[in-house]
Amino acid sequence: MEIKDKSIAVFLDELASRQATPGGGSAAAIMGAQAAALISMVCNLTIGKPKYAEVEEEMQQVLIQAENLREQLLGMVKADVTVFDQLMACYGLLKNTDEEKTARSIKIQAALKEATLVPLECARACAETIDLSQIVAEKGNTGVISDAGVAVMAGYSALKSAALNVYINTGSIKDKAFVEEQLAELAQILEGAENKTNAIYQLIQTKVSA
Amino acid sequence: MEIKDKSIAVFLDELASRQATPGGGSAAAIMGAQAAALISMVCNLTIGKPKYAEVEEEMQQVLIQAENLREQLLGMVKADVTVFDQLMACYGLLKNTDEEKTARSIKIQAALKEATLVPLECARACAETIDLSQIVAEKGNTGVISDAGVAVMAGYSALKSAALNVYINTGSIKDKAFVEEQLAELAQILEGAENKTNAIYQLIQTKVSA
Repeated sequence: MEIKDKSIAVFLDELASRQATPGGGSAAAIMGAQAAALISMVCNLTIGKPKYAEVEEEMQQVLIQAENLREQLLGMVKADVTVFDQLMACYGLLKNTDEEKTARSIKIQAALKEATLVPLECARACAETIDLSQIVAEKGNTGVISDAGVAVMAGYSALKSAALNVYINTGSIKDKAFVEEQLAELAQILEGAENKTNAIYQLIQTKVSA
Repeated sequence: MEIKDKSIAVFLDELASRQATPGGGSAAAIMGAQAAALISMVCNLTIGKPKYAEVEEEMQQVLIQAENLREQLLGMVKADVTVFDQLMACYGLLKNTDEEKTARSIKIQAALKEATLVPLECARACAETIDLSQIVAEKGNTGVISDAGVAVMAGYSALKSAALNVYINTGSIKDKAFVEEQLAELAQILEGAENKTNAIYQLIQTKVSA
């Protein structure tokens, strides 16, 4: 059974267990998917309300983007487990002869690259949820603006979590050009995310306390 | 069916929908429960390893605390929906006569207080996950330290999310002494949480990049 089809309680039991998967990578993707779902919720509770007719079209667009992100992020829950299991399988390969050692090392390096690209893609999607949170925080139904605040926090923590899952793999990759490229991209994704998140949160806190 | 027994995919569908519940409050509690589960995971993968024999007893203690927090937080997923529905039911009460208006207002005020105390309790539990994350980040199995990093981010975003759900209710409560007391407690819970989270994250980032 895929993780997404398991109950929340069962998923949490498995997360807490001594099994290596599901782990932080899947948890990060689920937090990102929660961010996307909450953005959709704010859109759905804004669209169709006469008071928000002016932003209706924009909310429709945001809803489409948020639903795409949710689907992507939910897919990454599974992808994270797949690449991790692949990597573990490579570490388990025979290494008695020099030939076996070389073959094993090549496979490990390829698996590490895949295990880097999945959380990097997750980070990219999470950064997009932060941007969409800003739009719904500024223009969405103020009656559910706290949900936009939960969205931005979920997206931000998912982004920072995904980043750790990139770092943990790049450390073992020998292809330094590849590592440099991915870390540069991650740095670009992370740039300004904390300040942006804090600004959106601050805006929402002001609105809910008004 | 209780939310915790629904599949992750179904929960996210309901979160994204135009239904008011489940909303950000439940999402926050689930993020907090993910934080607790990840702390347990690190404990479970540290306990019993000869290399970590020195911290075995402490990890056993942290595991018990994390599992308690996970159970509490999972319970709050349901409690959040219950108090929200109660509040909505009170807003729906008749208000034709002065008597009805007074009775309705008293019930709304009582429901608002309950709707404040649930996220406040959630915030308290989430702050505890941050403290436990620090212990497992410093002393737990370094092979799964990125999971401690996801835990601290999940706990922090759940805390900040729960805070918004406190603010959104206190704004409508007339009993100013009650409001002051709860906000003072929340401020105490929040104090230093951001700096602590950043420090733990930084420690983990340094360890995974080493």
